Amino acid sequence: MTAPTAQQQPDFPVIGIVGVGLIGGSIALAIRQRGAGQHVIGIGRSAERLAEACRRGVIDEGETDLAAAARRCDLLIFCTPVDRIVAGVREAARACGKPTVITDAGSTKGAICRELATGLPDAVTFVGSHPLAGSEQSGFEHASAGLFDKRVCVVTPTLNTPATAVTRVAKFWNELGATVLEMSPEAHDRALAETSHLPHLVAAALAATLLPANRELAATGFRDTTRIASGDADLWTAIFLGNRDPVLASLARFEGEIAAFRQALQQNDAAGLKKLLETAKISRDAIGTA
Amino acid sequence: MTAPTAQQQPDFPVIGIVGVGLIGGSIALAIRQRGAGQHVIGIGRSAERLAEACRRGVIDEGETDLAAAARRCDLLIFCTPVDRIVAGVREAARACGKPTVITDAGSTKGAICRELATGLPDAVTFVGSHPLAGSEQSGFEHASAGLFDKRVCVVTPTLNTPATAVTRVAKFWNELGATVLEMSPEAHDRALAETSHLPHLVAAALAATLLPANRELAATGFRDTTRIASGDADLWTAIFLGNRDPVLASLARFEGEIAAFRQALQQNDAAGLKKLLETAKISRDAIGTA
Repeated sequence: MTAPTAQQQPDFPVIGIVGVGLIGGSIALAIRQRGAGQHVIGIGRSAERLAEACRRGVIDEGETDLAAAARRCDLLIFCTPVDRIVAGVREAARACGKPTVITDAGSTKGAICRELATGLPDAVTFVGSHPLAGSEQSGFEHASAGLFDKRVCVVTPTLNTPATAVTRVAKFWNELGATVLEMSPEAHDRALAETSHLPHLVAAALAATLLPANRELAATGFRDTTRIASGDADLWTAIFLGNRDPVLASLARFEGEIAAFRQALQQNDAAGLKKLLETAKISRDAIGTA
Repeated sequence: MTAPTAQQQPDFPVIGIVGVGLIGGSIALAIRQRGAGQHVIGIGRSAERLAEACRRGVIDEGETDLAAAARRCDLLIFCTPVDRIVAGVREAARACGKPTVITDAGSTKGAICRELATGLPDAVTFVGSHPLAGSEQSGFEHASAGLFDKRVCVVTPTLNTPATAVTRVAKFWNELGATVLEMSPEAHDRALAETSHLPHLVAAALAATLLPANRELAATGFRDTTRIASGDADLWTAIFLGNRDPVLASLARFEGEIAAFRQALQQNDAAGLKKLLETAKISRDAIGTA
């Protein structure tokens, strides 16, 4: 363990990161760079990968035994695929030996927060988080200490989550550079279905539409529009199934927009097409370029 | 007119750019930077804008009278919206006083090349072009001499286009840094419907689906996927209508992909979803990140 500095003690001195990939690795790097913790334990299944993450200075220590690590942590952050978070949190919570806050970085929140609202030991509090940052790349080799800087992190308490724990988790994300928005898990899932999950589905469908013979004619427009379709298929299968109904609802609205474009085009309706494109441009321009 | 240099005389000494916006301005800058012409005349409707383009060093001279400019040019490049190219070329061709090659930078080629395959004076040859470069921005203020560097430019001769003119136009685009692909106008339109026009339509539909309340939750994935939806609505209305049937055909295939995703999600079919995402990832990974 690194020696405590003369500066103010961080709120969570020992932090465990479960799943040291692009997100987990970036959280670890940001904690170390910004002094948001004193000691970062990376927890994963491959001792070899954890040793490499140590060697690169991403984490202070690697541990393959979740329970052994959990016992020593003040804060645990689950950065595993969304379909493995609930079981992982329950396993860790059973081992915790002191008051511990557990959060996550999962892209869906409803099911996870609902399941973890009950059944945890008294000393353990779970608060759902979702930092809106990432990449189509994976692995701590692509991690970056600045990944959360000026990005939004959504924190999703339920009615039973103690306010102190919510504040502490929000403060932690602030220390990593993020702006925190507090929302219910359900509101988060409805919004993210539209802003993240639907775009992923659409980008994938568009990439799949491209015939191999036309690849050399795909320029920057196509590349940008489909970039996220390079994301990991397993991760995204779990996200879609974990947020199925809101994604289907957003998809239905998107299919309605597509049908309006198709109809205007079929009818050679220049005024109608222009109106649809203008509405889209207003919406897109409103979110800026950053 | 600038004095001829001691170097080899360019193939087209005097070049007219009709429509000095992002594309026309970038062509002008590239010509001047690479010595692909000796004198660049910018042709447009606003004397004020042309004067500003001169002041910024984008063009050598501005001219609002298309016929007057055409008379002096060895090469004319139409960078106007696609629905104004045919009439502009006919007007310019009537004025040409010496052997002149005319090309364009339009995003659709079938209708334009079909209409211009006949009825031009003997001294004038039209060869369709489409440099696959651009931006959602507009105006010569955003022009760049390097816009065509290492990009593809499609040149679309018809059966009647003289081979010499095709070679000269191809060589011109090479001088601007582009790799030239020769295709029939119809093959171009089918391919670009898929790689450019469909992505624009999809990005616009996705941007239109975003509810204003969710804008602050739109992160990099959403931004990238919808970036091109900020393009000019008039320009794109003309492109869609100018390539209607191929766009509708690509759209039908895209809607089939979307339906497959919807069905897999409705049926909670994890294996099916994963397979769809993997196919999309393979397609996207194959076109790279450049």
